[in-house]
Amino acid sequence: MHDESTIIEGRNAVIEALRSDMTVERVFVQKSSYDGPIHTIIRETKKQGIRTDFVDKSRLDEICPDRKHQGVVAYVAAFSYSTVDDILTRSQEKGMDPFIFILDEIEDPHNLGAIIRTANMAGADGVIIPKNRAAGLTASAVKASAGAIAYTPVAKVTNLSRTIDELKEKGIWVYACDMDGESVYRTSLTGPLAIVIGNEGKGISKLVKEKCDAVISIPTFGDIDSLNASVSCGVVAFEAVRQRSKK
Amino acid sequence: MHDESTIIEGRNAVIEALRSDMTVERVFVQKSSYDGPIHTIIRETKKQGIRTDFVDKSRLDEICPDRKHQGVVAYVAAFSYSTVDDILTRSQEKGMDPFIFILDEIEDPHNLGAIIRTANMAGADGVIIPKNRAAGLTASAVKASAGAIAYTPVAKVTNLSRTIDELKEKGIWVYACDMDGESVYRTSLTGPLAIVIGNEGKGISKLVKEKCDAVISIPTFGDIDSLNASVSCGVVAFEAVRQRSKK
Repeated sequence: MHDESTIIEGRNAVIEALRSDMTVERVFVQKSSYDGPIHTIIRETKKQGIRTDFVDKSRLDEICPDRKHQGVVAYVAAFSYSTVDDILTRSQEKGMDPFIFILDEIEDPHNLGAIIRTANMAGADGVIIPKNRAAGLTASAVKASAGAIAYTPVAKVTNLSRTIDELKEKGIWVYACDMDGESVYRTSLTGPLAIVIGNEGKGISKLVKEKCDAVISIPTFGDIDSLNASVSCGVVAFEAVRQRSKK
Repeated sequence: MHDESTIIEGRNAVIEALRSDMTVERVFVQKSSYDGPIHTIIRETKKQGIRTDFVDKSRLDEICPDRKHQGVVAYVAAFSYSTVDDILTRSQEKGMDPFIFILDEIEDPHNLGAIIRTANMAGADGVIIPKNRAAGLTASAVKASAGAIAYTPVAKVTNLSRTIDELKEKGIWVYACDMDGESVYRTSLTGPLAIVIGNEGKGISKLVKEKCDAVISIPTFGDIDSLNASVSCGVVAFEAVRQRSKK
């Protein structure tokens, strides 16, 4: 009846879902699990008239084989992806320069979720992902977004290179975040901006990188190759925040 | 919190682990299983201050699906720990101001690993974690560190507050990274520095926070509560890098 991508597990994630404008269809709460966050959830589901069942832990374990449900699971209406136009409209409505993240084949749903969470907290307008060879909005991604997916639109496009061309035509500067570029601390990240984050292993594909206006890098001093993709995204996102709020 | 590849099961194997220089992080003993070897194990764990839980056989069967535990299971670190002195010696050898991360009960081994990776890439001297209620160097943490654990020392301490006092006595500024502090962009992160990152859900504990010299925050503009712990750590780490390389 429900597919994986419509399950939300964990207390914070379920509370955020109930407070967002997502459609929560049904909630399962673990019997004898009655602390503060669970009470908040039960109060919300009552208020909103959402069917709530009290079940054994084994039932929740069955729904969430990774057992990270913390005693509560919600089924929500499947997430609909937004469009690039939705994201651009959002920045227009805010009366601010566009600020967008483009993910070139991020494969780990935890990274996707953490990046959506970061985009939300950095005040970005949205996240663009490719249709193929990339993590989508699965339950893991939604959980890792810690509720941010309810606020920050994610658009799925067929061809990232074409989307980058379209953004550039609209006057948006598109920067590839990779290892061989100019330091982010010496690059202006103000104005209409889109930042491309690459795949966890391969980085940004050659074709996509060539489409970008410039390559920017985080200066590092370590012994290993690279930062985690969602950490890189966070570092660049908040350097942009720092520069943009000084304006 | 623990993953399979760091599990040692069976009486002799656990006794050997306790007598070796492996770091045993936690032991589970079957309730009402009190013969000679089990007594030896309990005596050793007490002596070494290792957390020991008495659980039902079903719990052990769950941890070891092959049921060869003979009433006892130990979790060992996949990597050996350093000491706080090792970390301080490291910064002395580099001839640079200490730059340390302190993790107040980070529970997710992926976050621990990503933070070790970030610490390495930011040129930090090491990471300090508490003995209890925190992810240790399990196989998942080691994997998420992407090799950084081979270069960046991780020290495990009994009492974080005491360690913070010791660092402060050595002239190191200790900042708590939480939501109610001064902006990181308006705080000097140069000089001898330790940054405390809090638990994924609860943040930094009151006691630890009170020990710190000041609270610093990442200014955010989102709809949700907080950034992912390893992303927060990355943002603050590289703001420190930016400030320290400008000196």
